[in-house]
Amino acid sequence: MNGIITLLTDFGTEDEYVGVMKGVILSVNPAATIVDISHGIDPQNLTQAAFMIQAVLPYFPEGTVHLSVTDPGVGTDRAILALSIGGKILLAPDNGILTLLLKEKSIASIIQVKNSAYFLKPVSPTFHGRDIFAPVSGHLSKGLDISALGPPVSPDTLVRLPLSEPHISDTGELLGTIIAADHFGNLMSDIDLNTLASFCNREYKKLGIRIGASEIIGLSETYANVKPQQPLALIGGTGYLEIAVNCGNARRHFGVGKGAAVRIGK
Amino acid sequence: MNGIITLLTDFGTEDEYVGVMKGVILSVNPAATIVDISHGIDPQNLTQAAFMIQAVLPYFPEGTVHLSVTDPGVGTDRAILALSIGGKILLAPDNGILTLLLKEKSIASIIQVKNSAYFLKPVSPTFHGRDIFAPVSGHLSKGLDISALGPPVSPDTLVRLPLSEPHISDTGELLGTIIAADHFGNLMSDIDLNTLASFCNREYKKLGIRIGASEIIGLSETYANVKPQQPLALIGGTGYLEIAVNCGNARRHFGVGKGAAVRIGK
Amino acid sequence: MNGIITLLTDFGTEDEYVGVMKGVILSVNPAATIVDISHGIDPQNLTQAAFMIQAVLPYFPEGTVHLSVTDPGVGTDRAILALSIGGKILLAPDNGILTLLLKEKSIASIIQVKNSAYFLKPVSPTFHGRDIFAPVSGHLSKGLDISALGPPVSPDTLVRLPLSEPHISDTGELLGTIIAADHFGNLMSDIDLNTLASFCNREYKKLGIRIGASEIIGLSETYANVKPQQPLALIGGTGYLEIAVNCGNARRHFGVGKGAAVRIGK
Repeated sequence: MNGIITLLTDFGTEDEYVGVMKGVILSVNPAATIVDISHGIDPQNLTQAAFMIQAVLPYFPEGTVHLSVTDPGVGTDRAILALSIGGKILLAPDNGILTLLLKEKSIASIIQVKNSAYFLKPVSPTFHGRDIFAPVSGHLSKGLDISALGPPVSPDTLVRLPLSEPHISDTGELLGTIIAADHFGNLMSDIDLNTLASFCNREYKKLGIRIGASEIIGLSETYANVKPQQPLALIGGTGYLEIAVNCGNARRHFGVGKGAAVRIGK
Repeated sequence: MNGIITLLTDFGTEDEYVGVMKGVILSVNPAATIVDISHGIDPQNLTQAAFMIQAVLPYFPEGTVHLSVTDPGVGTDRAILALSIGGKILLAPDNGILTLLLKEKSIASIIQVKNSAYFLKPVSPTFHGRDIFAPVSGHLSKGLDISALGPPVSPDTLVRLPLSEPHISDTGELLGTIIAADHFGNLMSDIDLNTLASFCNREYKKLGIRIGASEIIGLSETYANVKPQQPLALIGGTGYLEIAVNCGNARRHFGVGKGAAVRIGK
Repeated sequence: MNGIITLLTDFGTEDEYVGVMKGVILSVNPAATIVDISHGIDPQNLTQAAFMIQAVLPYFPEGTVHLSVTDPGVGTDRAILALSIGGKILLAPDNGILTLLLKEKSIASIIQVKNSAYFLKPVSPTFHGRDIFAPVSGHLSKGLDISALGPPVSPDTLVRLPLSEPHISDTGELLGTIIAADHFGNLMSDIDLNTLASFCNREYKKLGIRIGASEIIGLSETYANVKPQQPLALIGGTGYLEIAVNCGNARRHFGVGKGAAVRIGK
């Protein structure tokens, strides 16, 4: 392990919750390097958490421990999982936020976290982030093997979110969904470059990308390829189709957000 | 000392203020581990700061230096204090934000911070966070004894906030106050588990917990013990009575916030 | 180098963008100490970014690497620059956010960052923060000399923002501009103490400081020199004239913000 622990939660940053988790981690491993991914997941939004953790993992070095704590079922009998994936370890509740990662072939093992020897006691039924996730991540970052945390679990038994997937409509359009609007108001879809490439045989210039009542023709390379305040579509930094307004805010420009349909014609 | 320094302020995170404090700390102690607790204290809200620093201290290891800088009197003759408490050191202005901690028996000593040898010069009368708190914390984190900072102070002379405390009304109700609404809209009261336990003889099931025009019957163990969007009351992660809505927002649901009354009948 | 890397962006903190940059940095230099200055620059606001990076540099130790990524031209042919300035290194796009720093005499050299050996590949045309700024900063923090990044550039060729500067009007007033309102609603002007001192011969008590339809007479030393909710003017922590309301919010009080005029009579 490399001592790096990342935190991805829906806890916000105005309360002391994240700071307290860091205190618990540093009590276990004073040498940990703690990195905030985001604490701005919309409260209890499992879909958003699922997409974000998938986007983050490739950019951290092997030996990193990732915590993903969006957990409306805290204190119930929902399981807590530890995954060994691509040389990293991921801790998350079994509530569907691993749905996208479970498709990957790099999962080495999945454990149900049960061994309370690594928990902070007493365990509050409302704050497992502090009492389970934080101390367990501290121990993992010092080299504890995930097999010490509990029994193995079959991936087939885990909760999965019913995520919509891009597909071809009866009229031959490629249909996708806006997953999130980011800080800039850019609209992030679930259509990845590979799907788009096979849909249009890499003929991107004539694509008609319809969002709300508007249509954008063709893909741009980057934001500034169109004039300020003009809309555009491009492949964003994570490889998905993104709709933006140069130096503007596409969410406000189009008046649509998360869950909106994207319809693509060729 | 363990090199850990925590920051709790009302400075927000959009300006450079917190980053500049970190630059000053790292200039004094490049090996410091700096942890943000929150910079989202409502501007000049001393009560909120008092509750938050009390909630944080138990979760950090001995040898940590905590800064609590909510300081509307910056640049006046209000004192700056250094407390040795439970093996940790706390720096804060003498404006009442230590009110709850001053009740604790673990305070070893209190010093008035006066020795400008450890300040950044010139000291701006509007930014003691940068010019006094940050460099002093850096020196403390390297092992400086707080007695080097100035003369001892008697706890009796310090500023205290006139905080309301839970009490029994003429009609036999337990009366408390909502201290804060957190990021999820959960309403945090000032009624701790011990107070509630002795009020109802640990008969929690029949309690009538009144907030606004509504009443919740009994305590839940955790949020998901009621259906989504249903209200509940429980003992939160810090040991205080909390009113919540499962997968919802109690502040919006009840239309009340900080300062609202909680009335409990048995 | 001291291993410290600071981040100043307009990326916000709700998305994973900043966390991903930190993953890339730590992949290159696992021992880096990463400090967030702010990710709350208004989207694409180059002027705000220019003032903030200037305010930050003096407070970090020599050997720090500073990233300033407000970059509406990402993916176009705008250059990326590495400056050696006062013993620190600064990475930023050539879009004007260095305007204020380019006036300083402590610039040792300026390099155009071109050597893709230090980039993450493939380089996304929409996220140079992750693919160029982050890995290059990691290498610099380990001691890479900026001359390895590309050819030297003459300061005369760089983009500069057309920033207004304080000046004396025909009627003998000193005219300045509000650059930003901070988290507290304090209004920060571009009038520095030296300019004000020579305007009024250090006779600060009779100054008439006009903002919106109001006038404040004289300078205060600190916020609490006037009663709560009363307006005041003072020299803020960075040495510029600031207009505030004690325990209040000057932006709301005066109903003005960024870009507003400040007119000073003596």
